[in-house]
Amino acid sequence: MKSFSDRLIEVLREKGSPIAVGLDPQLRFLPREIKAKNFKRYGKDFRAASRAVLEFNRRVLDIISPHVGVVKLQIAFYEALGPHGMESYQKTIRLARERGLLVIGDIKRGDVGHTAEAYAQAHLGEVDIDGFAAQGYGVDAVTLNPYFGEDGILPFVKMARFHGRGLFIVVKSTNPSSRDFQDRRCGTERLCELVARRVNSWGRGIVGKSGYSAVGAVVAAGSPTLGKRLRRLMPRAFFLVPGYGAQGAKAEDMRHYFDADGYGAVVSSSRAVIFAYENPSWKRRYGVKDWERAIEDAVLKMRRDISRVSGSG
Amino acid sequence: MKSFSDRLIEVLREKGSPIAVGLDPQLRFLPREIKAKNFKRYGKDFRAASRAVLEFNRRVLDIISPHVGVVKLQIAFYEALGPHGMESYQKTIRLARERGLLVIGDIKRGDVGHTAEAYAQAHLGEVDIDGFAAQGYGVDAVTLNPYFGEDGILPFVKMARFHGRGLFIVVKSTNPSSRDFQDRRCGTERLCELVARRVNSWGRGIVGKSGYSAVGAVVAAGSPTLGKRLRRLMPRAFFLVPGYGAQGAKAEDMRHYFDADGYGAVVSSSRAVIFAYENPSWKRRYGVKDWERAIEDAVLKMRRDISRVSGSG
Repeated sequence: MKSFSDRLIEVLREKGSPIAVGLDPQLRFLPREIKAKNFKRYGKDFRAASRAVLEFNRRVLDIISPHVGVVKLQIAFYEALGPHGMESYQKTIRLARERGLLVIGDIKRGDVGHTAEAYAQAHLGEVDIDGFAAQGYGVDAVTLNPYFGEDGILPFVKMARFHGRGLFIVVKSTNPSSRDFQDRRCGTERLCELVARRVNSWGRGIVGKSGYSAVGAVVAAGSPTLGKRLRRLMPRAFFLVPGYGAQGAKAEDMRHYFDADGYGAVVSSSRAVIFAYENPSWKRRYGVKDWERAIEDAVLKMRRDISRVSGSG
Repeated sequence: MKSFSDRLIEVLREKGSPIAVGLDPQLRFLPREIKAKNFKRYGKDFRAASRAVLEFNRRVLDIISPHVGVVKLQIAFYEALGPHGMESYQKTIRLARERGLLVIGDIKRGDVGHTAEAYAQAHLGEVDIDGFAAQGYGVDAVTLNPYFGEDGILPFVKMARFHGRGLFIVVKSTNPSSRDFQDRRCGTERLCELVARRVNSWGRGIVGKSGYSAVGAVVAAGSPTLGKRLRRLMPRAFFLVPGYGAQGAKAEDMRHYFDADGYGAVVSSSRAVIFAYENPSWKRRYGVKDWERAIEDAVLKMRRDISRVSGSG
């Protein structure tokens, strides 16, 4: 079985760009035409909203899949819509995989051992139903929270090894108050550096042919000093870099995350791409109705931007 | 509107014991009779498993609700069963609330601001569906992970204030590797002590008549020195103390979490109560078929144990 990092590199090479699009379908930003149709059909309820989300995702996937190898689904926006929303989460994963895309479940779960095991089986593996192995959510990788330490992480590492899947552990997040704890000095290093060291050791036994591990890290684009330091502490980790566009991260801030071949990082953008039509400049150019062209333009612009610093594409 | 902490104290007083039962329905431990019936009816799939979980929960709730004021649902075991599992999560919440129980969603979510907001609305409040406010999961409180810092927490505080709900932020967890990061010294204090200080300040503006805040903390029973220190750092926080029974926590270790009136902490047990019939000593006494009596005995035993240290009951 191919390791996750090798599959990731393969799909990035094929698409010629180390970018991911976040399918984070915040209901209030969905195109009016899609919402209206579904609300008219089912009424204003969770089912209608979940169907609207699924339809939107399908159309976004059709637009972006020639240009992008990876999608990231923020599960919060599906979970918020109840069981129907979780159904749209599952179905979106399936639609993306059918189009040859690699899917990251942005779940940021973290818990004690036996609970982590339940999450790991469900998201990366199979669930044992009285001896019958039922396919779980079926994503290629998940994001995780490190606060519980090693026994919250190892069940996912085990599942990743067994099923050729991957993890991205949150080391340094994009939000301003990531400094509250992640930047705290603990002895000679910051907490995020301590986490980075553990990410590196957890990933040691699960390295692909590419030299990269299936245990990656979520690392915000930010201070070049910290970024270079984290890169050195985790030489084998793929970085998932969120927040390009809407959260203010700039391509230049990510240059040192990439290796000489343009690998080692996947830059992710959500709102700035899928809700590009909400951006005044796209709105002027295309009008509200042409939201699909705004998305395509936004993803192409992102490709160009990131290629300048990754050296690929 | 009554504050969460006042509602909590009211229900604990009424039931005469500061305990919570964890409805963490691991499929493999469910009574065979319940599984067999549902698998026969639907086949071995997520729907059957989810119905079995719901039926089990209903019967457990009927047994425990005269003796217990609070239940805690570990969402992982519902999420693992897909959309059907999430439906059983919702329905179990409803069944518990109908029986006058206070429900804690053990979700341990944590994310950046706008994502945290989506989680907060879904679990503690209402979800905006195009102007229609749809009721979310409807728990009375949730558990949260602090790694993202303040802007991952404030959306929940806001929602808690608005809807009279509560939070329990993980300060110190029960698992052995909680020492990996939570016990790391950051300057003069451990990371978990830094988190405790923030829990205290986040809870300042949302204190009930009882003097306790709606912002509580998950604190493992363990070293008395650390326990007393955390109690001092968070004088207004209700402690949710997991792991009694199966995870090895002993009543004696929690004595200093309670105030003179026997309030200030809720001790939670999951497997040791709901799967008491798996324990060899109960099995000998009742046999497998009498699993309901084993549960009742286990919950009564827990009440007695905890009353000795809380002083209540």
